[in-house]
Amino acid sequence: MQDNLMDKIMEEVMKKVGDSSAPEEKTEAPKAAPKACGLTEYVGTAIGETIGLVIANVDYGLHEAMKLDKKYRSIGIVGARTGAGPHIFAADEAVKATNTEIISIELPRDTQGGAGHGSLIIFGAEDVSDARRAVEVTLKELDRTFGDVYGNAAGHLEFQYTARASYALEKAFGAEVGKAFGITVGAPAAIGVLMADTAVKAANVDVVGYASPGNGGTSYSNEVILFLSGDSGAVRQSIIAAREVGKQLIEAMGGPAPSSTTPYI
Amino acid sequence: MQDNLMDKIMEEVMKKVGDSSAPEEKTEAPKAAPKACGLTEYVGTAIGETIGLVIANVDYGLHEAMKLDKKYRSIGIVGARTGAGPHIFAADEAVKATNTEIISIELPRDTQGGAGHGSLIIFGAEDVSDARRAVEVTLKELDRTFGDVYGNAAGHLEFQYTARASYALEKAFGAEVGKAFGITVGAPAAIGVLMADTAVKAANVDVVGYASPGNGGTSYSNEVILFLSGDSGAVRQSIIAAREVGKQLIEAMGGPAPSSTTPYI
Amino acid sequence: MQDNLMDKIMEEVMKKVGDSSAPEEKTEAPKAAPKACGLTEYVGTAIGETIGLVIANVDYGLHEAMKLDKKYRSIGIVGARTGAGPHIFAADEAVKATNTEIISIELPRDTQGGAGHGSLIIFGAEDVSDARRAVEVTLKELDRTFGDVYGNAAGHLEFQYTARASYALEKAFGAEVGKAFGITVGAPAAIGVLMADTAVKAANVDVVGYASPGNGGTSYSNEVILFLSGDSGAVRQSIIAAREVGKQLIEAMGGPAPSSTTPYI
Repeated sequence: MQDNLMDKIMEEVMKKVGDSSAPEEKTEAPKAAPKACGLTEYVGTAIGETIGLVIANVDYGLHEAMKLDKKYRSIGIVGARTGAGPHIFAADEAVKATNTEIISIELPRDTQGGAGHGSLIIFGAEDVSDARRAVEVTLKELDRTFGDVYGNAAGHLEFQYTARASYALEKAFGAEVGKAFGITVGAPAAIGVLMADTAVKAANVDVVGYASPGNGGTSYSNEVILFLSGDSGAVRQSIIAAREVGKQLIEAMGGPAPSSTTPYI
Repeated sequence: MQDNLMDKIMEEVMKKVGDSSAPEEKTEAPKAAPKACGLTEYVGTAIGETIGLVIANVDYGLHEAMKLDKKYRSIGIVGARTGAGPHIFAADEAVKATNTEIISIELPRDTQGGAGHGSLIIFGAEDVSDARRAVEVTLKELDRTFGDVYGNAAGHLEFQYTARASYALEKAFGAEVGKAFGITVGAPAAIGVLMADTAVKAANVDVVGYASPGNGGTSYSNEVILFLSGDSGAVRQSIIAAREVGKQLIEAMGGPAPSSTTPYI
Repeated sequence: MQDNLMDKIMEEVMKKVGDSSAPEEKTEAPKAAPKACGLTEYVGTAIGETIGLVIANVDYGLHEAMKLDKKYRSIGIVGARTGAGPHIFAADEAVKATNTEIISIELPRDTQGGAGHGSLIIFGAEDVSDARRAVEVTLKELDRTFGDVYGNAAGHLEFQYTARASYALEKAFGAEVGKAFGITVGAPAAIGVLMADTAVKAANVDVVGYASPGNGGTSYSNEVILFLSGDSGAVRQSIIAAREVGKQLIEAMGGPAPSSTTPYI
């Protein structure tokens, strides 16, 4: 009986503890239970402490302060505590699927005590229904784009891939629109360096960029990020090779590092 | 009886867990129990892991390295892990009440795993008793200025308001001295965008500034901050409107988000 | 019996909680249990969520993106979630002991929810065995260089000292090669200010530099760092005086702040 009690207590405790502690990228990204929110501007929430909002008519004074182009009356807003890659690749699908443009992408240093970023993405549209649609598509895509985010107490890995980059990836990472594009992210940054080397050796790909903690590309996150383009098969092959190496390293540091949702690459 | 035991255990556990985990802005700001510290430079501690110190005669070599004006022999120092707005608005009252000036205000990216800032504020004075008094006033005001800081596991909101801005707010945020001034802060940043729009639409106010994760104003915190001035009634009205919207959003993400102390606006 | 049960439960709970929470610099730096990792590039892990790696032949495309000097075919990589000073002083010993050079030192804003940095250090060598040796020496030195890192829930202190600085300290901090060199680090930053003043008053030392959250030297960490050189006895004396003051302050804020390993200064 004492054992049963013990189990019950531990379960209760770990539930509460899980709520109040600041875990790593992987575990801190539970699907937020969407509550009732009556505001018309509210679109929804998603994994990674993500929230989606729209403003039908941005106030003129704020328009100026935010340095928005005047042609966009309506904006869509996606913000997250945890995750930048997943959100930017999701937003890329949203831009393809809707009549919107990416106004800005900003990368706070966050992940709720983890080693990486959160994100703030703003879509511009002439009509609020387009802005809302872009936010909805982004929130929906996140379940997929968190699929190759792996984490444990030591750090996290992230991989993203698209056969055809669009304007969100061009804006954020300098991807060439219409070409295959992918990224490898390793934290702590040392792992990212070795994954980058592995990726470029694994197939015939082009290095579009390389971001490290001190070169201004990462908001001082503890990550090294490689940006790749090329033939779509080659980009995938590079990323898969990097993933294999990265997982061995992060697991040598901190034990099992499962996917946040379901791997897609 | 087992239920009683269970309750008692959970209480014990949550007490200990609260100590060792890294919660959000709201909950991580317990009033630090002031211990005996015999150093003459020690003034006290306060909410937000805040410490107050004075140096009667700053070493000449350090004076140079810190780029201090030579006329200040004495400095007062207020530093915190969690909170910048509360400390700057508190310091503003201290500057009004004492014969000191603000030398510098710096905003580390902190909040102990949360989405925002800590702070480092340095007062200059010709006499150490003035510097000490400024630190004391700041520490004492914090209980009030943490009143409109709201938080939960998803993020935090902050609102500050003064009918008459002084030199700390001018230094930190470009406020016009003598005028009503207020700020709205939302984290994750997406919430801050919508609160900013709500605030400027709610009353006839002037946008003094807008800070976002990537525009250099936030040390890469996951916040959007709006700086407002105007007629004192209008500034208050704007802030209250933003607060109403912000609370609905943060609570849709992470459940109840109570005040850190007692709301004052 | 209930008391026994209670004790047992609390023990269990705190064990699990310790695993899942994000503690401060001190406690978050357990010696990572080195697991089997079969990659030839893997060197080892160490305290502070540190990993050491080597690449025998950096890919040419990556060489360009990383802006590496072409003469280095091989690189050694040391990366950590927690700790920059300990790693840089350890790397300094590695540079003295091996035929390598420091290529780059970068300081992410990390410490897993704490107030400080992680690090990414890259050694260049013509031969991979030299690069590996440098990484091995660095990992091994960390046990010592974490000796004067002290922490609790409120923040952390760090002190480092060498009788003869070499190229890692020159690269990272502008130390003069061959001279005694030391640093004092206090977080929250307010404590660092008072420690800096104490250090320069305690002995006849030269201030090589002063880094604070907003002056670009700290990646927005919540630290003030003083860099000192001079006669080796004087530098040690300064650091010991600062340590005495710092410990009183951090313990007034957050209770006992023990060493991460064993003090060496």
